[in-house]
Amino acid sequence: MKRWYIDKGPDSDVVVSTRVRLARNFEEYPFPSRCSREQQREIIRKTVEALTGDDAEFRRGFTVIDFKNMDLNERLVYVEKRLVSKELAASDQEVGLILSNDEQISIMINEEDHLRIQCLAAGMQLEKASEICNYIDNLLSQKIDFAFDDTFGFLTSCPTNIGTAIRASLMLHLPALTMTGHINALLENCGKLGLSVRGLYGENTEARGCLYQLSNQITLGKSEQDIVMSMKTIAYQVTEQERLLRREMMQRNGLQMEDKIMRSYGILKYARTLSSEEAMERLSDVRFGIFAGLITNLDETDVNEMMLRIQAGSLQKFAGRSLRSDEMEAVRASYIRNHIAKKDKRFD
Amino acid sequence: MKRWYIDKGPDSDVVVSTRVRLARNFEEYPFPSRCSREQQREIIRKTVEALTGDDAEFRRGFTVIDFKNMDLNERLVYVEKRLVSKELAASDQEVGLILSNDEQISIMINEEDHLRIQCLAAGMQLEKASEICNYIDNLLSQKIDFAFDDTFGFLTSCPTNIGTAIRASLMLHLPALTMTGHINALLENCGKLGLSVRGLYGENTEARGCLYQLSNQITLGKSEQDIVMSMKTIAYQVTEQERLLRREMMQRNGLQMEDKIMRSYGILKYARTLSSEEAMERLSDVRFGIFAGLITNLDETDVNEMMLRIQAGSLQKFAGRSLRSDEMEAVRASYIRNHIAKKDKRFD
Repeated sequence: MKRWYIDKGPDSDVVVSTRVRLARNFEEYPFPSRCSREQQREIIRKTVEALTGDDAEFRRGFTVIDFKNMDLNERLVYVEKRLVSKELAASDQEVGLILSNDEQISIMINEEDHLRIQCLAAGMQLEKASEICNYIDNLLSQKIDFAFDDTFGFLTSCPTNIGTAIRASLMLHLPALTMTGHINALLENCGKLGLSVRGLYGENTEARGCLYQLSNQITLGKSEQDIVMSMKTIAYQVTEQERLLRREMMQRNGLQMEDKIMRSYGILKYARTLSSEEAMERLSDVRFGIFAGLITNLDETDVNEMMLRIQAGSLQKFAGRSLRSDEMEAVRASYIRNHIAKKDKRFD
Repeated sequence: MKRWYIDKGPDSDVVVSTRVRLARNFEEYPFPSRCSREQQREIIRKTVEALTGDDAEFRRGFTVIDFKNMDLNERLVYVEKRLVSKELAASDQEVGLILSNDEQISIMINEEDHLRIQCLAAGMQLEKASEICNYIDNLLSQKIDFAFDDTFGFLTSCPTNIGTAIRASLMLHLPALTMTGHINALLENCGKLGLSVRGLYGENTEARGCLYQLSNQITLGKSEQDIVMSMKTIAYQVTEQERLLRREMMQRNGLQMEDKIMRSYGILKYARTLSSEEAMERLSDVRFGIFAGLITNLDETDVNEMMLRIQAGSLQKFAGRSLRSDEMEAVRASYIRNHIAKKDKRFD
């Protein structure tokens, strides 16, 4: 399996990626915020052993990442790849990350819970991601006693995660729903159905690049399968609504839409300075254009990758040094220009 | 000599083209507005004879254009090429046009004056254009008695042209003077020196595409040579000022300028709909970019030609039919896209 951000998945015209996350806590230790550093280190050690102890082949598939000797920018890259939370990356506690080499599976250690088992995949792959999480969970359960209550289910640091302790999220690209303003009714309806939708890069609904994260609110009183299935059903409805609107927009305003999309493409290809906001907006147009058949030398994995690589941490890694904000805008434009130019040549 | 709009001339980073025009009237007829149709026809006939009568070879270099059997759109193309005035193109009188095959020399017959002898050239070529006008004037004078007063000089329908009856104009591209706002002081100074500067596509100073027309106001009390020489001196000063400012802008704000220019190029290359205003603005940026060395697959003749061809008459001629304004914007974008794509291929 390829890394989610350079892979193609089912329904990826609308569903950029899937993430499933399970929260687990050791029964024998207090929640991380109340652990001593010594206890935190023990938790890391025991988790690594439980996961990679016996099977040398399996072990080679994973890397234990040490955040302590990593500079802040390097950590930020992990956040931007969605492999760890901002909180973990910024933590001064004994935190750990076990990462599969394909960056599909990541286990955060000593974030809010002792363990956050996470699986990322391109497109709509809720069941597969959920299965993988369960596989890892079962593997760890053989060696670790997780805090579990017969009435409540898995116990978590924050009560909103208690129960199945599963959080499934889909990253959705919804340009048509956004442009037509229908997104607001959608946000309301999803709330009523126990799902939250929010802009990808923040808690509010201001979505940069028309990217939204749909995730379940309820973890208690339903089975994992029920949570995943009801989410899948709603996500398909949203997807169909988005597709319908895109077709309508192209039929009614084809020339204007094509103009908007191709201008964005032209600007990305030639601009010498790009703010993060503008770049995300224009990449969103290009993503729309790819699935509308207007842009053929790029595909969605190019857009995914560019959306990832133009964030502050990745850009500074790319430049090999820390950048002032004006330098960042120039390097961002340069990165995008080069990426598109490479693809242009290949298809010319 | 090539047509002015696809030719390169001296100082064409700033001076797009030169036009010199002489007004002449037959002594034996009243001014055109007071002529009978019969007299107007006689004037046309006599002018054609005087110009092309004896020399068959010379005659083949010219075409007599009949505006009567020409639709309005076709006439508009002549206006857009600056070969005739709007007034002549719209006239319901007996008007005529003698045009050299290279479209360098045009003689309007029965516009405001009986004859307007005009020479167009690319870049800064005041003396050459003036010489050519004089050559045609001398040739015609051998057969036609022009209205001439020993005190006032050549008599013209409008008293502002009386005397030498010469009007010299330069089309200037002044993006740096415009962007920095220095243009206003320049306009004032030129006024004091007896020259007028105005936006190319109107009587006011709102210049579309940063194009300005510099022309002499005074025709009386100075020799032709003096008029041409003083204009040349001032034009060189303006040109140097523009060049200095361009260099300064590129040094101080290189990245921003490059960004602006390359974005305009990208938009022209990919947009699907372009208003006349936007197209002229973006072509102006591209023209600047060519002489700043940023755009190498186009030269100024491409910009000249595009600026000409995207006007209403030429576009409709290109499309082969009359166009609604929204269709016009789409055809304009398509014309520009094709022009640039052709050049991109050639240089790739």
